[in-house]
This record gives sequence, structure tokens and C-alpha cells, in this order.
Amino acid sequence: MSDNANAVTAGLLVIGDEILSGRTKDVNIAATAQFCTDLGIELREVRVVADVTEAIVEAVDALRERFTYVFTTGGIGPTHDDITADAIAKAFGVALPINAQARAMLEERWASTGTEVTQARLRMARIPEGADLIVNSVSAAPGFRIGNVHVMAGVPIIMKAMLEAIAPTLQGGRKIHSIAIQAGVGEGAVGDEFGRIQADFEDVKMGSYPQMGGVRPTTELVLRSADLDRLQVAAERVRDLVARAHAAAGLPPPEFSA
Amino acid sequence: MSDNANAVTAGLLVIGDEILSGRTKDVNIAATAQFCTDLGIELREVRVVADVTEAIVEAVDALRERFTYVFTTGGIGPTHDDITADAIAKAFGVALPINAQARAMLEERWASTGTEVTQARLRMARIPEGADLIVNSVSAAPGFRIGNVHVMAGVPIIMKAMLEAIAPTLQGGRKIHSIAIQAGVGEGAVGDEFGRIQADFEDVKMGSYPQMGGVRPTTELVLRSADLDRLQVAAERVRDLVARAHAAAGLPPPEFSA
Repeated sequence: MSDNANAVTAGLLVIGDEILSGRTKDVNIAATAQFCTDLGIELREVRVVADVTEAIVEAVDALRERFTYVFTTGGIGPTHDDITADAIAKAFGVALPINAQARAMLEERWASTGTEVTQARLRMARIPEGADLIVNSVSAAPGFRIGNVHVMAGVPIIMKAMLEAIAPTLQGGRKIHSIAIQAGVGEGAVGDEFGRIQADFEDVKMGSYPQMGGVRPTTELVLRSADLDRLQVAAERVRDLVARAHAAAGLPPPEFSA
Repeated sequence: MSDNANAVTAGLLVIGDEILSGRTKDVNIAATAQFCTDLGIELREVRVVADVTEAIVEAVDALRERFTYVFTTGGIGPTHDDITADAIAKAFGVALPINAQARAMLEERWASTGTEVTQARLRMARIPEGADLIVNSVSAAPGFRIGNVHVMAGVPIIMKAMLEAIAPTLQGGRKIHSIAIQAGVGEGAVGDEFGRIQADFEDVKMGSYPQMGGVRPTTELVLRSADLDRLQVAAERVRDLVARAHAAAGLPPPEFSA
């Protein structure tokens, strides 16, 4: 993570009892993380909270003050436990009327599928005052953006479609380059010197990820930086470290991909 | 989520840049959620933060004040980016010495595998003063418990082994029962009345989960309660609602599993 003042940052808020109970395995965290990385946006924090208004308001207020963008996922459907729009309106101190454009989008879809208009379904047209709609190409019920907060669906295919819809409206950050270096030894065999290399390269973020389950432990060393030249210099130091660690362990020299 | 004052609650803190960058797909959230549900502990909040001391300290302080238990995962390995122990010691205002028992556990394992003792590896024996160790049956490097905070590994198989190790030390909560009812119609077709049923049963938590990807949208309605009798009464109301919704949509009557 860069502390660069120019960094474009984000927080993600996942809303839903079903994630916290273990009923549903979340996949939106990984999808949003990859989405942010691809755009050069640094995802700095994720929170998962229950379908409880106060919990949602507190989390969205904390994240929207801190980061360039906030993304939320979940709780914008037609049932009583879908309270995200209510909580966001409360956090921003605005009303939550039926939005004419959202209602028109929904009614057009419902007309084409012969779906009856119910009070429950109309809940999905309630949009905080002052918000812009986020188009839902999958099931028509829109998300919305208010301030720096982007409110999206919890169903993964809809969430992904909404992320694609908002991508052109987001300010991309600096592209972060990364190099992954495989070491055929455990973390402990490279950790001391890896730490010293990190200390020499404040502008390159270095992480060490143990890989278990094979015949012997191995390690993936990952270097990330916005500065490609510095990244490559640091990577050479790490490749040299790994080559020496292999020799010390009696292993064949490592083969590095380009 | 129950607001019962007797509820046993938990917060989970996932620590690691690799989750936020999308490099690694987290599986510890789902595993911890299921673990808590099985023990009758209500997982109320999850946070994911980067390998940044201030971020870890802030999150662990927020969660440990609020919930019966806090679980953390990640950042207890031998490399410079493993700073969880440092951050926890800072949060609790205690020192972080080499722990004799932890060192003995590690050295015994290292002796049996012919592993050299390095400064990096000894990082894993640093344990906050006053903490109890959590045994690691997989790779020997222990986790620890201090106050209500349980600090565990990020590698999923080790995290799971540590959860099993601490389970007997945790106070189980009330067992929460659940009933899932499948409806062959979309959320909007049942949402109005489902909301009215929820309003009649404050002690039963009802959630609605749209299922997409089939020929037509369907919905899973999930009821959860510590009170099995009330749960069954509420479930009958919901089954009746679903039966009527099927009839209105010209669908065959629903088949409910026992």
C-alpha cells in the first residue's frame, strides 16, 4: 500500500447476514479487489456488516471519510431485509423517494416479462435524493451513486455488471506493476535478507506468501510498485537472494519467468 | 442477528495486502463464519485491512471493545511484512519478547526437519506479554490469545487447525436453528407479505436470497431463531405464502423438505 498523497483509494462494504452466518460464501470481495487493482485504485479496507441500519451507517460513514471511493454490495432488493438504500439515505441525511427514472427502468422490464408491480418490487425504485443511478443490465433494478459512495447489488453477476458500468466514471490511479518470484524454500530461509531488501526500497512493497501442501514448503515473494524501473532493480536483488537460498538448501538453481 | 444481551458475539479481522490486491482469494471469512454458527456464536462484523500497523491496531481495538471474541487471521509468519504480533502488542500496550515456550515448540520442529534457526524464523516466537499460546499442529509456529483476541495464521489449513484448537476454550452461545424455504418465484412476488410476517415475529430473523441463472428467478427464504417453536410457527406462515405465490404464478405447488 502506498502512502502517496496522489494515490486513489477505496473501501468496500459488504452488507448481509448471509455472509456472516456462513450460508453464502462471498465472492464480491475478490472481484472488487481485482477490479480496483486493474484500475490502479488501492483497495485499503473491506468491512462486512449485518443487515442492521446502524451498522451500515457507521461503516459507510467511516469509509467514505477515509477513501476516494466507497463501494457497497448487497441489500438493494425488494424484501424487508433489503435496507441498504434506507441506511445510505440516513448516512447522507437525505430523503428516499421513489425515483421516476428508476421506476421507469423497472416498469419497462416488468412490462416485457409480464411481472406485476407490487409494493415490494417498488422498494427497488427508492433512491436517495441527489443520487445518480447505476445501470443494472442484468435485472434492471438500478444501483446508485451518492457522493463518493457507489451502492451495488449483492448478486455476483449483477455486482460485476455494475462495476463495469461505473468503471468509466472512476478516476484511475497510478498503475501498480507487480513481479512474483517463486522460491523453492520456506519463508524462514529468505526472511532476514528479504526484510533488508525491503528496507532499501521504500517505494516497492514486498510481500511473502508461504505455499503449503507440497512435498516441502515453498514461498512466493511478490513485489509491487508504481515505478517499474525501481521494481526491476529490487526484483534482481530478490532473485539473487533466492538463487543463494536454493544453493544453500542443495536445490537446483531457480528458474524465473521473464 | 439477535440483540439479546446473552448473545455471544464475534468480530473477525483479516490482515493482508494480498487479499486487498486480489492476488489471494480469502477463504478464512467463510470458514470462520461457519465455525461461529456451529458454536452458536454470532459473527457480527468482518474487517479486512492491509499490513499496516495503525490499520491493524485501530481495527482490533474497535472489534475487541464491541464483541465477546475477536479472531484475527494473517501476518504471523517469519517475514518483515508479518507485523500482526507487533500491532497486537501495541494495541494492548505490552512488550513483545521471544516466548520461551513458543521458541521451544519451534526449535523442536526445526530440529526434526534439519531447519536452521534464523532471526527471521525466530520472529515467529515473539508473543505479546501475558498472552497464551494457540497450538499449531500443522507447522508448529503458534498463534496466541490475549484478552478476548485470538491471533491466528492466514494459511487456511493452519487457520482451521487453530480454530479447532481454541473451540473448547470458547463459550458457546445459544444454538441458532434455521429453516430454508425454496420459492419458485422472484423476490418481488413474495416480498410484501414476507415483510409482514417478519413484523409479526421479532424473535425470528428472516432473510430473502434471490437465485439467478436459472430459467426464471427463484428465491430462497431463510428463517433463523434460537426458539425452535416460534421458528416452526413462522415457517408455516412462510410456506403458506409460497404456496399461494406458486398458485398465483400458475406454478405447481411447492414441495418443502421436512
